[in-house]
Amino acid sequence: MLTLLTDFGSHDVYVGVMKGVIACINPQATIVDLTHEIPPQDVAAGRFCLMNAYPYFPEGTVHVAVVDPGVGSARRAIALQLPHSILVGPDNGLFSGVLSAENPILAAVELSNSDYWRTPDPSTTFHGRDIFAPVGAHLSKGVPLEDLGPAIDPQTLVTLDLPQCYEQNQEIVGCIQSIDRFGNLITNIPGTRVMGNLGSVRVGDRLIPGGKTYSEVTRGGPIALVGSHGWLEIAINGGNASYTLQLTLGATVRVQVS
Amino acid sequence: MLTLLTDFGSHDVYVGVMKGVIACINPQATIVDLTHEIPPQDVAAGRFCLMNAYPYFPEGTVHVAVVDPGVGSARRAIALQLPHSILVGPDNGLFSGVLSAENPILAAVELSNSDYWRTPDPSTTFHGRDIFAPVGAHLSKGVPLEDLGPAIDPQTLVTLDLPQCYEQNQEIVGCIQSIDRFGNLITNIPGTRVMGNLGSVRVGDRLIPGGKTYSEVTRGGPIALVGSHGWLEIAINGGNASYTLQLTLGATVRVQVS
Amino acid sequence: MLTLLTDFGSHDVYVGVMKGVIACINPQATIVDLTHEIPPQDVAAGRFCLMNAYPYFPEGTVHVAVVDPGVGSARRAIALQLPHSILVGPDNGLFSGVLSAENPILAAVELSNSDYWRTPDPSTTFHGRDIFAPVGAHLSKGVPLEDLGPAIDPQTLVTLDLPQCYEQNQEIVGCIQSIDRFGNLITNIPGTRVMGNLGSVRVGDRLIPGGKTYSEVTRGGPIALVGSHGWLEIAINGGNASYTLQLTLGATVRVQVS
Repeated sequence: MLTLLTDFGSHDVYVGVMKGVIACINPQATIVDLTHEIPPQDVAAGRFCLMNAYPYFPEGTVHVAVVDPGVGSARRAIALQLPHSILVGPDNGLFSGVLSAENPILAAVELSNSDYWRTPDPSTTFHGRDIFAPVGAHLSKGVPLEDLGPAIDPQTLVTLDLPQCYEQNQEIVGCIQSIDRFGNLITNIPGTRVMGNLGSVRVGDRLIPGGKTYSEVTRGGPIALVGSHGWLEIAINGGNASYTLQLTLGATVRVQVS
Repeated sequence: MLTLLTDFGSHDVYVGVMKGVIACINPQATIVDLTHEIPPQDVAAGRFCLMNAYPYFPEGTVHVAVVDPGVGSARRAIALQLPHSILVGPDNGLFSGVLSAENPILAAVELSNSDYWRTPDPSTTFHGRDIFAPVGAHLSKGVPLEDLGPAIDPQTLVTLDLPQCYEQNQEIVGCIQSIDRFGNLITNIPGTRVMGNLGSVRVGDRLIPGGKTYSEVTRGGPIALVGSHGWLEIAINGGNASYTLQLTLGATVRVQVS
Repeated sequence: MLTLLTDFGSHDVYVGVMKGVIACINPQATIVDLTHEIPPQDVAAGRFCLMNAYPYFPEGTVHVAVVDPGVGSARRAIALQLPHSILVGPDNGLFSGVLSAENPILAAVELSNSDYWRTPDPSTTFHGRDIFAPVGAHLSKGVPLEDLGPAIDPQTLVTLDLPQCYEQNQEIVGCIQSIDRFGNLITNIPGTRVMGNLGSVRVGDRLIPGGKTYSEVTRGGPIALVGSHGWLEIAINGGNASYTLQLTLGATVRVQVS
C-alpha cells in the first residue's frame, strides 16, 4: 500500500501521471490519495495533513508526499523508515509533523541511486514523477531502503516545527493551525492538555463553552471540543465556525487551566 | 466492492483516513468514490446522489455514506441489507432515495456492536472513520449483518422524502431538485411520467421545447429531455442552463399533459 | 489497467457510475483517474491533458476519454489501437494530441456493436456510462478491437490540430496553450525547438530569462524553461506566473533563435 499527498490539485494530470509511473513498476500497488489540495507550495499545510493521516494506515504503508517548492535546487530527496511506515519526499520539513509524534527514525537515506528513478536524467521540475513515485513503487515491492542511496544522519534533516502552545497566567495559549472544509477551527493545543478540565475557551472577546460533541449545543451555537484528530477544535453545530466567528489561521486561542 | 459518498471534500485527509481504516481491515477491498463534494451537511443532496448511483454497481456492493450533521447525538448508526446492495451510514434519511426505488429492506440493524468499530471508544465527531468505514470493511469481507447489532424495525427509520411532483390543471408540476456540473437542471419529474408525450416545458414565462438529446436544438438553444438518470432535465446545447436561464434549486417546472 | 479522463467534475456521481459499470464487467480492472476537471466541453483541453499523460502508463493501458459536446448526435464513438495503448471515446479530435506524437494507428473501429454496451438502448446524453466505460472494460479484459464494430479509415477521423508555433524574423512565435494549478504558463513551443539555445523569451514588453529550473532565479522572479511535459514553460519561482504576469491562454510568446 502506497499513499500520495501533493499540492498538485485535480485540474492537471500530474497525479494521474505519478500513478501511471507507479503502475509501470508495481502493478499490484494499491494507491490511496490522502489529498492533492494542499495549497501550492504550502509545506506547513502538507506537514499537518500527513501527520493526521498516517496513523490510520496499515503497517508498512509507503507515504509519498510531494510539496516541493525547492524542486531542482540542492534540497535532498529522502526516504525515512519509521517503525510503522516509510516516508518518501523532499527534505524540507514536510515530515516534521509525523516525526514529532514519537516516531524514532530507524533508517534515513538520500535518494541518489538513479537505478530506482524513472530515468537517470530526471526533469528539474517534476521529481514527483521522476524520483518520488518510482522510488515509492520500488519500496512497495520490498526494495530495501539502503539500496536507494547513502544513509544520512537524521540530525541533519530539515525541520519545520509545529507552532507550539504555551502556558501563561494559568491559561494555555495557542493558535488556529488549520481550518477544515466545514469551517471547524483546529488549534495547535493537543487534546491531552485539556482533557478532563475543558472549561470555556477564549478567542478575542468571545467565550466559547467546552463540550464533547457538536450536538451538545443548539444548532448555530459555538462549541470547543477535542476533535477526531486529537486537537482542541472550535466548531459551530450545523454551521461554519470560520465564517461565523470571523476567525482565520493563526488567530490566538486561550484556554483557562482549572 | 465498497463505495464512499461523503460531504468531506478533497481538501482534508478525512476521506484518505477512511480508506486507511478500510485497508487495515480488508486490504483486498476495491474502493470507489461516488463523490465527496456533497455540500456540507446537505443530507438531501446526498440522498439524491446515492439514489442515482447505486443501481450501476455490482451485486453485493457495500455503500458507505456519511453526510452526518447529527454525529455524536442520539441518531442511530445503521446498516441495511437490500436485494442488490448493502447500505451503511447514519439514520437520517440519507437512504430515503434508494429506498424509494422499490427496494425492500431484507434486514436492518443498529451498529452497536463495537467489536466491528475501529475502537470501542469512538470519537464523537468522526463516525466515518471510527464506525462506518470499519463496519463497511467488515461487511465487504462477508461479516453477516446480524453480527453488527440488534435488528431494528424498518418502519422506525428516519425518512427524508423526495420532493414530489403532482398533477394540476392538466399539467405536471415539479421543481428543480439538482443542478449538475454542466448547469443541467434536473427536475423531480420522473421520465416515466412524460415519456412519449413530452411537449414543451414551462419554467416561469419561458417555454422550452421537448426533445431527446442536446444536439437536436441549435448550439445555445434550450431543450427539455429525459436525462441519463431518468429525470426530466432542462439543458442548453453546448451551454449552461442554470446560468443562461437564471434558474436555481427549487424553481417550479410545469409540463403540459397532452 | 484503464484510465479515465472526463469533464464530469467531482460534484456529481457521473464518474463513480462509470466505475460501477466497469466493475460489473471487469472487477479486476485497476482504474486511474487522469483528471475529471477538464472545463465543460473543452475538447482542446482534454486533448492536451491526454497527450501529456498517456506515455507514462504501462503498455496495453486502455484510456477512456469523454469530453463529448456532441453526445447523442451523429458523431461516431470510436476505439483506436496504438502501439502502446488503446484509446476509447468520441470521434471529435480528443485524440489528436496523442496521435500527433508519432503514434501509428494499428486499428480503428466504430463502436457500433451493442453487445459491448451497457444496454442496447443507451441514453442519448451519457455515452460515458452506456458505451465508453463498458467498451473500455471489455477491452481491458482482452476483447479484440474488431469485435466492437466495423473498421474505419483513420483518414476519416475528426482532427483538432494543436496550435502550431512558427518561425518568423529569427524568432519562434508560439502561444500559451495551458495553465496549470501553480500558474505555470505552458506554451505550444516544443522543448526540442529551444534546447541548448534558450536565451530570453519575450511576452508582450517583457523579457524573461531562460534557465533550467525554478530555483535558478530568486524567489518571485520569472523564468522560462522546458517543463516536465516537454513544452517551453514560463514560471515564477515560488509564485504564480499567470497572476503575476497577467497572462492567459492564447497570449503570444516569442523566443529568439540564436
